[in-house]
Parts: sequence; structure tokens; C-alpha cells
Amino acid sequence: MAGSSFGNIFRITTWGESHGKALGVVIDGVPAGLTLSEADIQPYMDRRAPGKGSISTPRKEADEVEILSGIFEGKTTGCPISIMVRNTSQHSSDYAAIKDIYRPGHADFCFDAKFGFRDYRGGGRSSGRETLCRVAAGAVAAKILKELGIEVCSYTRSIGPVSIDPAHFDKTLITSLPTCMPDKAANDKALEYLESVRSDGDSAGGVIETVITGMPAGIGDPVFDKLSADLAKAVMSIGAMKAIEFGDGISVSESNGSKNNDAFRMDNGKVLKATNHSGGLLGGMSDGSDIIIRSYVKPTPSIYKTQETVNKNNENVEINIEGRHDPIIVPRAVVVVESMCAITIADALMTNMSAKIDSLKTFYKP
Amino acid sequence: MAGSSFGNIFRITTWGESHGKALGVVIDGVPAGLTLSEADIQPYMDRRAPGKGSISTPRKEADEVEILSGIFEGKTTGCPISIMVRNTSQHSSDYAAIKDIYRPGHADFCFDAKFGFRDYRGGGRSSGRETLCRVAAGAVAAKILKELGIEVCSYTRSIGPVSIDPAHFDKTLITSLPTCMPDKAANDKALEYLESVRSDGDSAGGVIETVITGMPAGIGDPVFDKLSADLAKAVMSIGAMKAIEFGDGISVSESNGSKNNDAFRMDNGKVLKATNHSGGLLGGMSDGSDIIIRSYVKPTPSIYKTQETVNKNNENVEINIEGRHDPIIVPRAVVVVESMCAITIADALMTNMSAKIDSLKTFYKP
Amino acid sequence: MAGSSFGNIFRITTWGESHGKALGVVIDGVPAGLTLSEADIQPYMDRRAPGKGSISTPRKEADEVEILSGIFEGKTTGCPISIMVRNTSQHSSDYAAIKDIYRPGHADFCFDAKFGFRDYRGGGRSSGRETLCRVAAGAVAAKILKELGIEVCSYTRSIGPVSIDPAHFDKTLITSLPTCMPDKAANDKALEYLESVRSDGDSAGGVIETVITGMPAGIGDPVFDKLSADLAKAVMSIGAMKAIEFGDGISVSESNGSKNNDAFRMDNGKVLKATNHSGGLLGGMSDGSDIIIRSYVKPTPSIYKTQETVNKNNENVEINIEGRHDPIIVPRAVVVVESMCAITIADALMTNMSAKIDSLKTFYKP
Amino acid sequence: MAGSSFGNIFRITTWGESHGKALGVVIDGVPAGLTLSEADIQPYMDRRAPGKGSISTPRKEADEVEILSGIFEGKTTGCPISIMVRNTSQHSSDYAAIKDIYRPGHADFCFDAKFGFRDYRGGGRSSGRETLCRVAAGAVAAKILKELGIEVCSYTRSIGPVSIDPAHFDKTLITSLPTCMPDKAANDKALEYLESVRSDGDSAGGVIETVITGMPAGIGDPVFDKLSADLAKAVMSIGAMKAIEFGDGISVSESNGSKNNDAFRMDNGKVLKATNHSGGLLGGMSDGSDIIIRSYVKPTPSIYKTQETVNKNNENVEINIEGRHDPIIVPRAVVVVESMCAITIADALMTNMSAKIDSLKTFYKP
Repeated sequence: MAGSSFGNIFRITTWGESHGKALGVVIDGVPAGLTLSEADIQPYMDRRAPGKGSISTPRKEADEVEILSGIFEGKTTGCPISIMVRNTSQHSSDYAAIKDIYRPGHADFCFDAKFGFRDYRGGGRSSGRETLCRVAAGAVAAKILKELGIEVCSYTRSIGPVSIDPAHFDKTLITSLPTCMPDKAANDKALEYLESVRSDGDSAGGVIETVITGMPAGIGDPVFDKLSADLAKAVMSIGAMKAIEFGDGISVSESNGSKNNDAFRMDNGKVLKATNHSGGLLGGMSDGSDIIIRSYVKPTPSIYKTQETVNKNNENVEINIEGRHDPIIVPRAVVVVESMCAITIADALMTNMSAKIDSLKTFYKP
Repeated sequence: MAGSSFGNIFRITTWGESHGKALGVVIDGVPAGLTLSEADIQPYMDRRAPGKGSISTPRKEADEVEILSGIFEGKTTGCPISIMVRNTSQHSSDYAAIKDIYRPGHADFCFDAKFGFRDYRGGGRSSGRETLCRVAAGAVAAKILKELGIEVCSYTRSIGPVSIDPAHFDKTLITSLPTCMPDKAANDKALEYLESVRSDGDSAGGVIETVITGMPAGIGDPVFDKLSADLAKAVMSIGAMKAIEFGDGISVSESNGSKNNDAFRMDNGKVLKATNHSGGLLGGMSDGSDIIIRSYVKPTPSIYKTQETVNKNNENVEINIEGRHDPIIVPRAVVVVESMCAITIADALMTNMSAKIDSLKTFYKP
Repeated sequence: MAGSSFGNIFRITTWGESHGKALGVVIDGVPAGLTLSEADIQPYMDRRAPGKGSISTPRKEADEVEILSGIFEGKTTGCPISIMVRNTSQHSSDYAAIKDIYRPGHADFCFDAKFGFRDYRGGGRSSGRETLCRVAAGAVAAKILKELGIEVCSYTRSIGPVSIDPAHFDKTLITSLPTCMPDKAANDKALEYLESVRSDGDSAGGVIETVITGMPAGIGDPVFDKLSADLAKAVMSIGAMKAIEFGDGISVSESNGSKNNDAFRMDNGKVLKATNHSGGLLGGMSDGSDIIIRSYVKPTPSIYKTQETVNKNNENVEINIEGRHDPIIVPRAVVVVESMCAITIADALMTNMSAKIDSLKTFYKP
Repeated sequence: MAGSSFGNIFRITTWGESHGKALGVVIDGVPAGLTLSEADIQPYMDRRAPGKGSISTPRKEADEVEILSGIFEGKTTGCPISIMVRNTSQHSSDYAAIKDIYRPGHADFCFDAKFGFRDYRGGGRSSGRETLCRVAAGAVAAKILKELGIEVCSYTRSIGPVSIDPAHFDKTLITSLPTCMPDKAANDKALEYLESVRSDGDSAGGVIETVITGMPAGIGDPVFDKLSADLAKAVMSIGAMKAIEFGDGISVSESNGSKNNDAFRMDNGKVLKATNHSGGLLGGMSDGSDIIIRSYVKPTPSIYKTQETVNKNNENVEINIEGRHDPIIVPRAVVVVESMCAITIADALMTNMSAKIDSLKTFYKP
């Protein structure tokens, strides 16, 4: 049952339920001496917040972060950073009607099977609200990575059938458009699509793409703790994720070696790759090119249509889900994916420092 | 740099290089009292062995397993099971010509970036031979699962553009056909395709599908250690994997909630799902339906065509890879995927036993 | 630098500094269905609180616990339990005078060596206040153990040269006497001793004894994760501990096998030991007898005498420590030792459930 | 049940039983580029071997190490180092007579309680032979530490009532005298004592002291992963250990702060301590002074006297243990303690490299 921690050296532990008093995260292993305050974290929380136009729930979640430990005189101390967000806008009564019914597409049934009962209010521990803890930790990881010249950037690549046009890629739009697409035309088309889905009482899915730039080569381990494997676990641990691919991803299965291999070439004294089919990962380690990840998000399971299901008494019943829910979670999940990737990269970099005996000698030798 | 262990309670540690003396695995956490011998493991090793027709390397690898510990009077003792396979058919000289050159699509460059140098013979630690350790451990995990009524079954779903026809699915063919496809017609077509690829000096990729039957509901954890996340890490830690999907996978991104949600229904007093878009996983936990996984394998990077690359001296060079290599690794990887999934499931089941206080009371109360 | 987590399945993560906003603990892996509220935890916090007579600091620490997650309708949900205690009685200004000076016997110098600087207020993360998080978690572990018929009981065995007389052992006195000694006469004598130490501006140490009753045999692992080894780590991770012994402990080094071995004997159909030199632990596993642990606590390093030391500028200086500090920490540490032992035992019991294949079959077989 | 691994970054996994085919260790996380061969390890194995005079079992254990992986062209590759020792001198028949009887002082009873049965030959997994795996790994750790100017030195401090005289300390004697005492007079007296114990069919215990020199300050973590706590776990995980103390150890309980505190003093521009009551550890971190550890070993439980015990059928019986066994294990355990300490220190140093953000920037910044 544990399972609420992630990472080895840079290690996060999250806690809290959708309709409990608060949610939070403890970040252990943050190096000492990093300038850090709530102001570094709040913008990430705001990117995750709902309220951008018609596509998200009208409920207001302030999600104001409070740092409770690990900072002294504006700098990280090397000790655990505890961050908390109080729940303020919960309507538990919304859920009373469905407390004994297993919502299709949700974790309800599995929760009861595992634990014998559950906090049914808003999904409890399985709620998307848990991800705000990941985002708070991701903001800290991102700040560390920035010091090292590394950036993780996630955005919406597609919503339902609407995809961005890479030729129109404009990074500045990611945080300003409601879809988090870096392409205004695609954004507008996607909003139209979502409006039609919503008016039908239905929901939609989409694809989130992540690009990690500035990675040194050789990060990650060759066997089980491949960087690709750890990134896969990180992203697939986010609710609603049903697939992940790196570089050319699923299309490699129909490719050929002569096309899929990336040639190494010297470029201004540096080893570079002529192409990046690998998505920046070879043999589980970073190869110095951008790391490219695409993750596939299922449609929000909460819809406004009547659905068939069963209840705790093992009776077939119909369910109509009331309350507030988004027709799509993709735009809000963008910063969650970005956060989990940043956390994974920060941890991998720290673990890697003792890979060579010469590094230890430089570090410790009197 | 660690990274050679996998699992929590059921925990494996692998060691060995392609052209070293031997490779092996230590399996810790195997429950005591399980009947086990080399005869349970060897068939899995043989499934991984090359030699099935024209599609694989002509080199002979006996890969004979030797159990060195953890068994007494034919039963597991609860103590670590050490399994070793001696290397017998290695031609290290094949690799002398390329020892300073980074093979495109391989881990060579990343290895040097990380460790400063590498065992260049046959990929060293990054060789596919490392996976024989996973298969040996997988055989043990599979035997445990069998005692619990759970089965993991992997097979080749497609090779290059050739896919199986689910309507012709015949499980008995998986271990008898050279492609490991459960469909004779597809197997024959795939072999034709591979012959053309091979004659062109090229290589191919493919898709491996895995079905896990007999799973109880509620296995896996709701947050980071989702069963889906752990399975993703397990499978993506196998070399050459570039994508993974569960259930409807990537197609969920274009689906709608009303279609993607699986209705729960009572069936002979048991909760079942009317459909299985979820692939047996909801909220990170097993939902009682079959777990469905597809993993995407890239074309073998070793091809017989001349390729551009660089060497250790930072010079642009051409490379021609000699030696023995398969035009495809998919059929040999099938049992590796099956093994990693079995290991993950066995571990998840063991971790789950203390999820309810009532379980502890039943177990320990005088 | 991580290092703020303890345990495997039952796993705690603590955070917070002496003079920060708050301290807290996240307890992951608590089985679902356990009745739990603040009322179960507060009494443990109160046992750790100062204020019992002349031997402890006059500062008032309410240390009121607030459970923030993991409980629903009065029962644990199986999800992480987050517990927080707000700091209310901190006088940071007390420490301004010594912020650049390394207090002898404290972690100050080591902290700066490791992290480059430190939160100097009251010891920061190295403060004894961190232990209140362990006590909160210990209360939860103790409640689990109680359900299984296991009890951990710690008490003061000696203070300076004053030891309890086992013949006068009265368990009810542990929580009522200021020394936490189970012997009124020893308590009175110890208080006299402490008064003389205090009036001299000095401090004292002591010994804490722990008895764990109701343990089933066979808990713990035979190699690295011996129950003795894990208990040793648990207790030695408490600040000020300088030694630990099990059963006959240090005296075994002068004993002989014929005297030190405990004979097994049948007693009413149960295997019992005629003696308990082993302290309930053989080969790293519980042997069914009471587990006996003694831990040795150093004198409080903060004393009212002038001491020689150095400062951050590498100058020899004298230091006079102002502020509030106890002449002894033993009585307050009693419940901390008890808590760490309870946590270790709870975790070991959970890990042990899959030791036999028959246990898995009983648990999972349809 | 796992429990056969130790360490985080520098991580060892041992396997094997007393009378199985072989024993071995996998060492993961060894930095790449360290010159290493069997010749570095064998001398440590020989220090552990029996045969030094009358005090140890007459059985011959060659214990020849074979490195199976992780070395290429004489250097570590950064990949797991697998080391194996074949069992050659096992007399399983010695144990047939006692296979159903629980030997007092041994793990037999606990093993059966935990796993339902056991490999009864020579203690199986609980045999002292398991420690040869620790010693092989310790030799590797010691070689890493040597590169960093750190040395771990263990020796026999006392045997039964006979202690060394620190005034006569001669380090060169440790590996040459049969008792591993650094004092010839004490050695001779101890041998006399052991002869009398042996002639009485009995056994003896003793104390092992360890001094770690060259430690930088600030290694270890302030909370659970205190260096003292990890060293305690490391040493207490060795069979037969019943107590451990650091610095002044148990005597601190009767000391006073004014005496127990070590003054910091500047000495040639370096912060040193005027005394070392702390044993080199403050607040769980190294303080730059020598780390001093004493561990207390119980008398060998196998003695030649008739003992009372029970058997698997729950009958009271008498037992006479035949076969070969040492009257004391202390001299052979010396190098085991030294090894476990070296492993712990190596791991702590590696974990520590990311304690400051400036260290990461120096390491990774382009």
C-alpha cells in the first residue's frame, strides 16, 4: 500500500485527498543553497489550475502553496521541503448520491477491492487533485535543472482529432492559450471540438508532448533504471495515461534499422546526431539530443450521460454523475507531465555523480 | 550507477556482460516451499534462444542455467536463488574493429559519456544477453503466479507491416512458430518480409502483445506505484523498447468518455466489465479484467549497410558492422516481456498483502 | 541528503525544523480499516512533552497534532496519513548570539561541513523536536501492534549512576513519574542527582530499556535486514544515542556458550526458552521470547558552563549557551525509542506476510 | 522476505548457503575506472579463513574468489561486479543427526517458524559462511576508500576477560596473530584462555574495535540515515553481534555534558576536536575525527556439551553437536566488521555528492 513516494536521491512523498483538509508533498534530497520561495512554485500551480475558458470546471481552486520547512533565509537547507495546499472549495455533498456506486472509468471499484472501502468524495486519493503535489515538487526540480542549463517543456500536441502543426510551433502560447497548445489555429479548432463534445455531455482525450533540452549525454543506467524506463514510470503514474512513446515511438515497429538509426556527426567539436529518431535516449541513457516524449490521455471518465454500472451491494444500476467536471483534462495535465519529467531528470543527475572513480577523487581527495 | 535491481519484495538483481565469463541473476524474496528446479527455468531460456529458422543469428547459445542457491530438497527456502549461465559461444575478436567507434542506434556513445570507457565486446552490459537473466527470474515468477491462478502470455502481434489477425489467434503456435506469432498465415507473411529485409542488409521492428489473465482486482497502488506505471517501467527497461500502451492505448486520445468507459455488470454474482477498453487497469490498479499491454520494438540497430558515425577521437568515420546479428529481435524479446510482466505482478501481489488491517489480524492474531 | 524516510512497507517521512512554521510526518502503508483519530496520538505527544517537574525545560510546547489526510469516517483509508504540529513557542532570538559558533557536542559543525550553511535556530533539523514526528507515527504503529497482541514498552533504566531495581518494577509509574522510571525509589534518587547536576550547570545521560511482548517467532530476515539490525538502526537514528544492546548485550563478550545459550523447552504445547539471554532475537529473527533492548543516551550537550570552541571564521572562541535546555533528555526520549521500535516491528510484520508460498495461496487462491 | 541486499548507491546483494554449491555477491554501483582484480580481494578472504592455530575449526576452506563480471581490461566498468566462491569442503552428513532438532543459540527454530522448513546443513543461509560475500565486497569498498585517503581498521579488542592494552597497540600484529589482537601479550593470554574454554567443551565471545581514519566531516544524514545508524545496522546485521557502541558508548550514560562534549579547536588552519568522546560522529554525521566503533560478539553457540532443547515434533530432547566448530568467532569476524563498515562509508560518500547545489553546478554546468 505504500506507493506515495517517487525518486531515489531527489525523493518526493505526496499525501492528501480531494476533499480532505489539505494536500501536500515532502521533497527530500533538494541540494542546499538553492534560492527558493513560494513565488517559484505558485506559477506552476496556476498553470495546473482550472478556469481557462469553457473547457474546464467552473469551480475555483485557489491552490495557494505554503512552504512549511526546508528553507532558511531564502535558501534551501538540504533538509526536506514540506509544501501544503489547503482545500477550500470542496463540495462533498455532490458525491453522496454515488457513494455506493462504482463510476465507470474511475478507480472506485478497484479501491474497494483493495482496501475494503474508500473515501468516495471526489475520488479521494485517486483524484486529480493529488497531482498538485507533483507540480509543486516539479517546480523545485525545474529550478534545479535551470541552474544546470536543462529545461523540460510540455504542451498539448492534440485534443481528440485536432493536432498542432509543428510548422506553427510558438512556445509562448503554451501558457497563455486555454488548450496549452503552441499553435493558435489548432487551439481554436480544438476549442470548437470540445464545445461540441461538452454539449453532447461527453468528454475527450488528447496527447501531451514533452521536450527536454540541454541534457548531458550518459545520464540514466544501462539496465533496469534506464532513463526511458524511469520516465515511463513517472508519466504513466499520472492518472488517465494509457500510453507513452519516446522519439519515433510506436512507428519504429514499422521502420527499418537503416532509417531508424541516427548517424553520429561531429559538429563544432561536439558529437551530435544527424537525426533524432531515438528521442534522445539510447540504451536507456541520454544521448545528448533532445529527449522527446509523447503521452496519451484518456477522455475524462466523468460524463453527463447515463451509464450502466454496479453498486457495493452487487446490483446492476444506472448512474448519472452530477457535479463539476472537465470535458478534458489534457490542458491541466500538461504541467503535471512536465513536473514528473523534471523530477525524474533531477534525480537521475544526482544519482549519476559517482559513476566514475575520478569524480569521487576530484570531489573528496584532500 | 547501480540500477541492476528490480522489484521490492520479489526483487531481482542481474549481472554479467555479453562476452564476460557468465551472466546471472539473484532472485530475493521468493516464498519458501515452492517446488523448483532447473527444469522449470530451462524452457523459458530456450524460448529466448536464437536458432529458429532464418530470422535469427546462426550463433549457438546453449544458455544452460545452473541454480546455485536457494533450493533445498527440491523446494525454495525463502533465501536468494542465484542462477548462472556461462558464456560459451563468444567471439570477442568480432568486435575489435569497432572498439573505438560508436555504432549508431547502440548505447556505445552513451556508455563512454557516462563511464569514461566501456566493454565494447558485443555491447557489454547493454547486450541483449543481459535479458536471459530476466527470463530466468521470469520463469520463477511465472511459477508463483501459476499457483495463484494467474498467467502472463506474450506473443508477437506484428513484425514490420505484418500483423496477426485476432480472429485466427491460436495460442499453441506462440512457442512453435519462429516469429512467436499466434497466427500461421501472419507468421508466413512476416517471414517473407524479414527475408526481404535481410537480403537488403537491413533490419525490422515489431509489436509484442501481452495478456495477463486471472488477476484479482485491486492490485497496484493508487499513486506512484500504479500497476500500470510499474509495468511500464518493467517493459521499457528492456532494450529497444520505444513505446508502451495499455488497453486501447494511444487510440484513447481520439476517443470519447461515453465510448471509452467500460460499464460494470454483474455476471454470476461477480463484478465484470462489459468491455475492456481500460486494459484491466483503472486508477493504476487491476480491475479484474485481463491486463492488455502492447510494447513497440525498434529495428535491430546492427545492420549490414555502411553507416556514418564518429569515433572516440572525435572524427567522422564510416562503419561496417561485421559479425552475427538478427534482422529482428522481436521473437526473442517476447519471453523477455512476458518475464518482466510476471516479475512485476508477483511483486505487486506480495506488497498488497497488508492493505487491510483485517488481513494482518487474520494472519497474526493468536 | 535525502534520509528523512524510514521503513519499507510501513514507511514514514518526517519534515520540519525546530524554529520553522511546523513539523510533520507522512505515514505511508498504514493498512485500511484501522480506527484512528488525534485522540490516539495526542497521549504519545504528551508523553514526549517537557514540563514534568524540575528536570525539563520550562518552555511550553503544546505540540497539538492535526491529522490532515488518510482518515475517512474515523478509519484509515490505506492512503498516507499526514500529521502536522505547528510550532508555537519558538524564541529564535535566543540563538542569534551563537549563529556563527559551533556548539560542542552538537551537529552544528557537521551541518556546515555538509551543506555549506545551516538553520542555526535551536538546532534546526537536528533539533530534538524532529522526534515528535516519530512519536506521532509510533502511536499509529503501536495501535496496529495492539490489534495483533504485541506491545512495545520503553522506560528509563538509569539516569547517571542511578538505576532502577528490577525487583521494584511497577509499569504504571512509567508515565506518571517525571523520570519515566518504573521504580519510585530510583526516581527520587535520580531527581536528587539531576538537581545537583543542574545546580552545577551541567547535564546527565542515562539508559532506556525497551521490552517487546507478544512477538510471534520468525519475524525479521536472516541476512542484512535482521530484526536486530533494523531495530539498531531505528534506535541509533535518534539523536544522542551512543550505544545499543540486545538481551545480555555487551556482557556476552565475557560469557560462555554453555551459559549464554538459551535452552528451548516445551511449555503447554508451545516452544519456549528456559532463559532469555538472547533478548528475543536469534539469527536476526524473533525467537518468540520478549525482545529486550537497552539504548545509551549521552548527556545533553547544551550546558550552562563556558566551553571552548571555534566559529565559522575559523577562530578559537568561548561559548556560553543561553536559553532553555534540559539537564537530561532521557525521560523525553523514552517514548521516542518506544515509537521507533513500534514502527520497525510493524514494518517487519508486514514484510513477512509473503514468506511462505502457502500464505500467498491462502490469501489469493480463488 | 528479501533482505539480502545492503546499501543504496554502492549496493551489495549476497546469496548462497553453507552447504550449497557456492556463495557469492553482486556489487552494484562501483564507480568505473578503478583498477581491480581477484588479487585485491583474495587477501581479505584469507583474513577471514580459519586455520590460524588452535582457535579455529580444522576444516580447510580455500574460499577462492572468482570475479565473473564488471571488470574489463583490469578496470571496473561501472556495471555490477559478480564474485563467486565455490563450496568445496562441506560435510553435509555431519548435520543429519540434528536436522529435526533446534540447536540452542542458533537460528534453526526461527527459520522454521518463518519459512516452514530449512536447509539444516551447517546453518544454511544463517551460516557464518555468508559473511565471506561481505568480505569480498568489503575489499572492493576498501579499495575505493583508499583512493580517497580513508582507511577502516578493525581488530580484536578483547576475548572473554582478556583485553588489549592500548599502550602496546601494534597495528602490524592484527593480520599476523591468530587472535587478530594488536598486542602480543594479550594475544598469548587470550590463547591460553581459549585453550581452557575449548578443553571444557565450551566457547567464548569478545569485542571487536574499529577505527576509521581520514573521514571528511559532514558525511551522513541528519535524521534517519545517520552515519551512526547505518553503521549500527551494518555491524548488527552480522550474526552473533549483540551490542554496538560509538566513541565513549555505554559509558556516556554516566558521564556529564561538561566532560562528554569535545571542544573544537583550530589546529594548523583546520578545525579539530581536542578530545574524541563522540567517536567521530555528531548529530549522525562524521565530525572529522576518527570514527570509533566497538561491537560485542556472543560465544559460539555450537559447543561440545550436552544441551536441552526441542525438536520439530515438539518433544523435549537432548542435543550433542558433533562436527567442526570454532570455540570463538571473533578473530574471523574482525574482517567482516571491517568490511561492513567500509561498505557503509563508501555508500555514504557517494550519496553525499549532491548535498550542495554548487556541487551539481560544478559537475554539470557546461
